[in-house]
Amino acid sequence: MKILLVGAKGTIGRAVQHALSRHQILSAGRDSGELHADMTQPDSIRALFERTGKVDAIICAAGLLHLGPLTEMSPEQFRIGLDNKLMGQANLALIGQHFLNAGGSITLTSGMGNEIPIRHGSNACAVNAAIEGFVRGAAVELTAGLRINAVCPNVLQESWEPLQSYFPGFEPVPAARVALAYQRSVEGVETGQVFKVW
Amino acid sequence: MKILLVGAKGTIGRAVQHALSRHQILSAGRDSGELHADMTQPDSIRALFERTGKVDAIICAAGLLHLGPLTEMSPEQFRIGLDNKLMGQANLALIGQHFLNAGGSITLTSGMGNEIPIRHGSNACAVNAAIEGFVRGAAVELTAGLRINAVCPNVLQESWEPLQSYFPGFEPVPAARVALAYQRSVEGVETGQVFKVW
Ligand SMILES: NC(=O)c1ccc[n+]([C@@H]2O[C@H](COP(=O)([O-])OP(=O)(O)OC[C@H]3O[C@@H](n4cnc5c(N)ncnc54)[C@H](OP(=O)(O)O)[C@@H]3O)[C@@H](O)[C@H]2O)c1
Ligand SMILES: NC(=O)c1ccc[n+]([C@@H]2O[C@H](COP(=O)([O-])OP(=O)(O)OC[C@H]3O[C@@H](n4cnc5c(N)ncnc54)[C@H](OP(=O)(O)O)[C@@H]3O)[C@@H](O)[C@H]2O)c1
Repeated sequence: MKILLVGAKGTIGRAVQHALSRHQILSAGRDSGELHADMTQPDSIRALFERTGKVDAIICAAGLLHLGPLTEMSPEQFRIGLDNKLMGQANLALIGQHFLNAGGSITLTSGMGNEIPIRHGSNACAVNAAIEGFVRGAAVELTAGLRINAVCPNVLQESWEPLQSYFPGFEPVPAARVALAYQRSVEGVETGQVFKVW
Repeated sequence: MKILLVGAKGTIGRAVQHALSRHQILSAGRDSGELHADMTQPDSIRALFERTGKVDAIICAAGLLHLGPLTEMSPEQFRIGLDNKLMGQANLALIGQHFLNAGGSITLTSGMGNEIPIRHGSNACAVNAAIEGFVRGAAVELTAGLRINAVCPNVLQESWEPLQSYFPGFEPVPAARVALAYQRSVEGVETGQVFKVW
């Protein structure tokens, strides 16, 4: 398969690239990877797909959130997650659906915080829940056997040091385990699912 | 109680105003109600609260979504629900938390589409799920006994005619039943909950 992997050089992206290495991976990032694009900008994504042509799978392992106390959170800070992680992933899916071969798939990334609130996580809760809601809503409308899923990783072992204060008593998961969920989404048959890895 | 009701003149808002009529209701809308404010604009909300002063409850029964086929949906269309219903309700909660008396509550409105996808509903699914995720995330961080919940109404009997094609085989609910969920949120003790009415 020919797979576009946005965020390929990130913590999750590197593990996904390794897990899917028997496929042709086109790695993308704003400044990293072979192909440069900013997923928050629709025109940048359109230009990206002009370069890739049709692909068999689109994976997004990128997206910024705002972590901070609710009692001090401004509308502008709340917008960070909306404009970046949520709108970026939606942009990729909305534009990318037209560049998928029949039977192709889209795999987005949500994260802890939807069902399980974390400290300073109200923006993460909203954005990750939205990505999972979008996947459920989009799956019933895709045509030509196209599929869409989300991976919901627990905090990663590889990200434990900067993030541990948000996750007291949580068991971080290795990126290699998280990567399996992307493989399941890309190579499997399921759609409209959220694959939790925790 | 002194209650700010945004969207008071809408289909749901009118029923909520009736159900809570033993309280002092301050009705708001962009052009309707006693107080005019656009919840998509943080400055407009700040000006609204300067006028109301402290309140005991904030209810939002407003917010636009984009309903349309996924296969034709543009990023700009997807943004409608994000900028309007999601960001508008988040603005109200983020700014409004500082204008609540101790023990006060915030009640937002999500809707069908999070767990149950509907035709042309991928934007609704994302936005409604985000509102519910936000409520779960925000509830654990509010201080001074403040509470936050969402009401998730099924399609209303009063809105059945324009909306029925999206809801084949659904049983629409009367606005008066939906209004009870707002009363439960405002007068009860629960927080971080999604009250489904269907
Ligand atoms: N790490 C965790 O523990 C964890 C747990 C749960 C969920 N998640 C989620 O998983 C996703 C990836 O996390 P991560 O820790 O792997 O992140 P990361 O290490 O910071 O990597 C992010 C990658 O995405 C690219 N990227 C960022 N913004 C982009 C944009 N606007 N357009 C295109 N590419 C962009 C970055 O490359 P450039 O800098 O070159 O753009 C980078 O390769 C995030 O959404 C995060 O919320 C992470
Ligand atoms: N009706 C249903 O069957 C149903 C079912 C589930 C969920 N919902 C949700 O419930 C909410 C209300 O629905 P509804 O049917 O009652 O809507 P509606 O009849 O269209 O009423 C909306 C109300 O909100 C006000 N409003 C709209 N945008 C605003 C803004 N930016 N700032 C301040 N006020 C604003 C409007 O007044 P102005 O025009 O004066 O601003 C109006 O009073 C929506 O979010 C909808 O998605 C509805």
